[in-house]
Order: sequence, then structure tokens, then C-alpha cells
Amino acid sequence: MSARPYCVFSAEGSAPRVGARSGDGVLDLAEALGDPVFAAPTLNPFMAQGPAAWREVRAAVAGLSGPVVPLAEVRLHRPFEVADFVDYYSSLEHATNCGRILRPGSAPLSANWREIPVGYHGRSGTVLASGTPIVRPSGVRAGEPCPTFGPSVKLDVEVEVGFVVGVPSTLGRPVPIGDFAAYVFGAVILLDWSARDIQSFEQQPLGPNLGKSFATTIGPWVVPLAALDGALVEPPRADPPPLPHLRPTGPSGYDIRLQFAVNGRVISRPRFASMYWTPAQQFAHLTSNGASLRTGDLLGSGTVSSFDPGAQGCLLELTADGREPLRLADGTQLGYLADGDRVTVSASAPGADGPIDFGVAEATVLPAL
Amino acid sequence: MSARPYCVFSAEGSAPRVGARSGDGVLDLAEALGDPVFAAPTLNPFMAQGPAAWREVRAAVAGLSGPVVPLAEVRLHRPFEVADFVDYYSSLEHATNCGRILRPGSAPLSANWREIPVGYHGRSGTVLASGTPIVRPSGVRAGEPCPTFGPSVKLDVEVEVGFVVGVPSTLGRPVPIGDFAAYVFGAVILLDWSARDIQSFEQQPLGPNLGKSFATTIGPWVVPLAALDGALVEPPRADPPPLPHLRPTGPSGYDIRLQFAVNGRVISRPRFASMYWTPAQQFAHLTSNGASLRTGDLLGSGTVSSFDPGAQGCLLELTADGREPLRLADGTQLGYLADGDRVTVSASAPGADGPIDFGVAEATVLPAL
Repeated sequence: MSARPYCVFSAEGSAPRVGARSGDGVLDLAEALGDPVFAAPTLNPFMAQGPAAWREVRAAVAGLSGPVVPLAEVRLHRPFEVADFVDYYSSLEHATNCGRILRPGSAPLSANWREIPVGYHGRSGTVLASGTPIVRPSGVRAGEPCPTFGPSVKLDVEVEVGFVVGVPSTLGRPVPIGDFAAYVFGAVILLDWSARDIQSFEQQPLGPNLGKSFATTIGPWVVPLAALDGALVEPPRADPPPLPHLRPTGPSGYDIRLQFAVNGRVISRPRFASMYWTPAQQFAHLTSNGASLRTGDLLGSGTVSSFDPGAQGCLLELTADGREPLRLADGTQLGYLADGDRVTVSASAPGADGPIDFGVAEATVLPAL
Repeated sequence: MSARPYCVFSAEGSAPRVGARSGDGVLDLAEALGDPVFAAPTLNPFMAQGPAAWREVRAAVAGLSGPVVPLAEVRLHRPFEVADFVDYYSSLEHATNCGRILRPGSAPLSANWREIPVGYHGRSGTVLASGTPIVRPSGVRAGEPCPTFGPSVKLDVEVEVGFVVGVPSTLGRPVPIGDFAAYVFGAVILLDWSARDIQSFEQQPLGPNLGKSFATTIGPWVVPLAALDGALVEPPRADPPPLPHLRPTGPSGYDIRLQFAVNGRVISRPRFASMYWTPAQQFAHLTSNGASLRTGDLLGSGTVSSFDPGAQGCLLELTADGREPLRLADGTQLGYLADGDRVTVSASAPGADGPIDFGVAEATVLPAL
């Protein structure tokens, strides 16, 4: 079966349509399979078809060798339209690090953290294609004698993995955790841009809003969920054990390895296998109150971080809120993001036929208006 | 000019399409005006056309008297598709009441409250048509010796007004507060269902999620923003004065009067004119970080409450978190919502040709599954 990720691409003069990765090229699925669902400008119609169709197409794609358009000749678009976007906070190490850095002297984890996957709804309308520049946001920050409005001076990015829903569910009917693979289509790299100064001023009591809502980047390649079966691992031991509706029916962590670079220099290698709450648990939590799912619902994992040096997924942690800039090999220092900085994140996971390549999600920071 | 609210309706055997209120009936706009934009099953295509088209249609509708379908013969649908939903917390009295009830002994308002309109993103996919039943949500609540999962025992509803965006904006470009009426199409009644026990357990540090995400109800009638010009009022005096980008260019409050009833008994009469942060300020805040707008973006005002007895917009406030149930005229008591309770909210505002009727948003609570 193919582990080839899907994308939405356009070649010169042609409309965006669905493709599959094939070496250094893109397989044109509308042409190769003769199915109009792949002539759509997003993966949404295909994602809505459900697991039987997903399986059939994966099997068909595995046997195809052409027609392939070289990657150098295509433009890659945002691969799906986002319905609702829920972003979690599911790394124990990230949550602990943030608590220690931002609230020294008090308990780093909130009382609910080990009981439920804590998360919030983000802005779907600003989930962007990889490559879309990030304009430095302005906002209200704490100040003396009073708060001021101006460009963020603590622009950060969180390295995450996103899981996208294909099959809708029924309002009022929670979806059991064991049905994760019957609803979720695949996984992408996700960059959660975060203006820490705006966020910390606004966050009480209703959570992040403008500190995050200006941009989220997703990678151009969607890895089919079933292709990641070979990457399934047991997550870290849960203490206390999860409540029954959040108890996985098998291994539910994924051994996805990420690489986080700024201006071409790798600054960390976060490991998704360390996540305390897994995508299946986040999924079950989301519908446990009867909330319904739509095609295109996106679940962000939250920053992927470990306590190991060099395995933390955001600059808040890597630089202690900017107080301890990273010293890079060429002698330069990196604190929070500067105008012109280019962030690139890549990922891979073990697959049945060798490593699965998630490709690269990237964006460059532009100055505030 | 017509102050007639718009709806999406269907008569027996016909597909949903756009109508305008006409007494006790609905004017079929696709038929009356011969414009296919009104044959759509949502207001979104018309909303996207912008203020010149909105003005032209209002003028045309004012002179029409038929064809009218009696309200008794139509079904009213959710009038628009929601893109992103941001819910605010903009009543000083509501925020103060909540702080006093839930955090006695500490400052009721967070330090940011008078500086920015505090808000969070809600779930767009569960914004429902009036009349859709509300299944009591289950979730994780605090408990001894440990938290448990089960049906909410503190089901509440917040009475709000929603403002819906028609015209999209450009990513990275804040929209000035003075452009509010060039982007915002109209206003609806909004019911923000809230499971207080689920919400209070989950809310730290990322805000409300499952305590709210199961349902939001909007009224069937969208009042054109321009029809509300006669209801514009000065909001309460701001202290401190708003930062420049949040400073209104004229009166920006609205004299909308709401009526909140449970099982047919009016329990409060919230007044929208008392809101500290106005829709124009919420709108300017939303894009101040460069976040873009889409057609269908919905801004909820937050609970409309005053300190006056009987002018509070949710049961948390009206019953002191359920500890002091309301005694109704017939001797029954009302704490949080019970299964079978029917909530109805109506609203009106002064208009050029008499009161503007927002109609009724309503829903009945069904038992947990």
C-alpha cells in the first residue's frame, strides 16, 4: 500500500487539483485515476468519502508510476479547507516548561492537565499554505504606566502535528475513541505562530486569541493516517490512568520525528512519540460533549517538546522567554523571531516501505505594517 | 428604507432560499426581485456583495408587498453559514458579576478587561438554527476523590447579540474601526449555551472549550446593520479611554432590548445599550493583529447584563451559580436548566418606522444520551 502523501498542486496555467507524492514529482490523480473528485481545488471532497475510498485510492496509487509533474514545476497550495481548528496543549514537557518559565514559584501544571487534553479553538480563516509570509502582528502588550499597542516583540512559533477529519459526525453523539481511524484522514506539519507578549496580556480568563489568530501554517503534504500504522507507539505512561472515554484501544502515540530550523540552521529535533495526550484522545475528547465533526476539522497537537536539550518545539522554551538566546554555530544569537527570519520544519515517520516524508512547512517573517 | 430582517426559509416542497420579513409572512426575494443570489440556501452570497448591494436591496424591498408566504407555512433555517465565531465578554456588569460569584474575595475583573475586548474563538460547526434541540452535554467535572465524566448539572445559556461579517478583508491588514459598517452585514439574537461545571474544570489556562462547544443558537432573522442606525447610542463612559485603534468614530452602542424567557415565563430583560465594549470595538480588535475576515464571521457580544435586578443575561448570574433559584410567579423554582426546559429570547430596537423586531431564538433542552 502506498504511503505517498497527498497535496493540492497547480502546474503552469492549470487550476489547482489533488496530487500524490512520487519521488521528486507529483502524480496527477485526476488524470491518473480519471476520478473528478481529484479535480477539486482541495482534498475536502475526497476526505469526505471515508475509509473505504481512502483505502481503495491508496492501493491504486501504489501501483501507479505516472503521469508525474516535477516538483520544481508545480506550486503547492493549502491542501484542505479548514472547518473548525482546535489546538491542544498535550506535551507534558511543554506544559511544564511553560509553567516554570511564565509562572515561577507556582505549580507548573493546571489541576485539569492530567485529566483532559486541554485545548482551545483557533481561527480557521487564518490557517495558511506553507510559504505564505507571516506579517509581524501588532497588539496590546503590558507596559508602564499603561498598556500600549504596537508590533509584537516576542514573536514565536510552535512546532506541532495536525490531524484532519474527513468524515463528519452527528450532533449530540460522541464518537468513541476506537473510531479515530474511521473519521480521521491524515496528518500534516503545523506551525502555530504565537506573539507571546500579546498572548500573555490577553489570556486571562478566556485563553489565547489575538496572540495566535493572525496565522497558523500547515504543510503542503497530508500523510494518510493508515500509512502511519507502522509508526504507532505506546505514549508515555499516564498518571492517573485516563477516564474510560479517553482510554485508547491500542497504541495511540506516533513516532514522528520533527526538525525545526531557523534560517537553515536546525535548532531542535522534537519527537512526537513523547506526547502525553495522543491524537486519538484529543479526538475523543472533542466530541465527548456531543459536538459534531465536519470534513476539514483540524486538531493541532500542541507544541511537541521533551526535557532533552534540543528537543523543544518553540522559542519560549528554547530561549527561556528570550532571556537566554541560542548561540548558533556561526556565532549568531537567536532569541525570538526577527523580521526576515525563515522558519522551516520537516518531519518523517517510519513506514512499511521506508521512512514517510511529511515534506517541509515554511514561512518567512515580514516586518509589521 | 426597509428595516425588514432577512431569513432563509422553505415552504412545503421547496428548497431553502432567502426571504425578508413582511408582517406575519415572508417575502420570497428570489421571486420578487428575480435575482438568483436569493435562491441560495444561505445569506452568504448576498452578504458578500457589500454595502452598495445591501442598500439597493433594502430600498427595493421597502417598496414590495408580495409575494408573501405566511410564517405559519414556512420553516426557518439557520440564515447563514458561519466562518469563524468569536465570542466576547463585553458587559462590565456580567464580567463583574461572574468574578464576584466564581472568585469571591479576589478582584472580579482581570487586569486586561478595561484595555481590550476580551474574547475567544468558539466552535463554528455547532452554531445551530433556532429550534434545534440542545442535548444536555456530558463532560469532565471536578469531583471527590477525583474528577468524573457525566452529564452537566449546571446547564446555562447566555443571552447575546451576534454581528455577522459580509465583506472579507485582506490578511495582514487591520480594518479601522470606522469601517465597521462597510464590512458588517447585520445582527441576530445569539444564545451561548454553557455547561458551567464542564467549563470551570477545563478553563485554565486556555479558556472555555467543551463547556461551550456543544451548541450556540442563532435567531432566524438577520437585521440589516443600517436599519439599526436609529438605535445607535453612546456606550457607558470608558475608564480608561480606549487605545486609539479602539476609539469609536461616533456613537457605537445599540439600544437593543432583549427578553429572556424559560418555559414561557420572562425571567429577565437585558439591555444591550449597557455594553461596555461595542460591536465596532470588538470588530476593530479582531483584525488589529492582521487577522483577516471572511463572509460569515460571527462576533458574539458576550452575555448582556446590567446590575439592575431582572436585567441579567444568564442563570449563573440570575441564580448565583444555582445557589439562589428564581421563584417564579406560579411558585415553581428555576436554578440551572432542567431537561425539557424551553428557552425563548426575543429582541427589538427602535427603527425609523417603528420598532424593529429581531424575532425569537429558541431551543428546548433534551436529556443527556
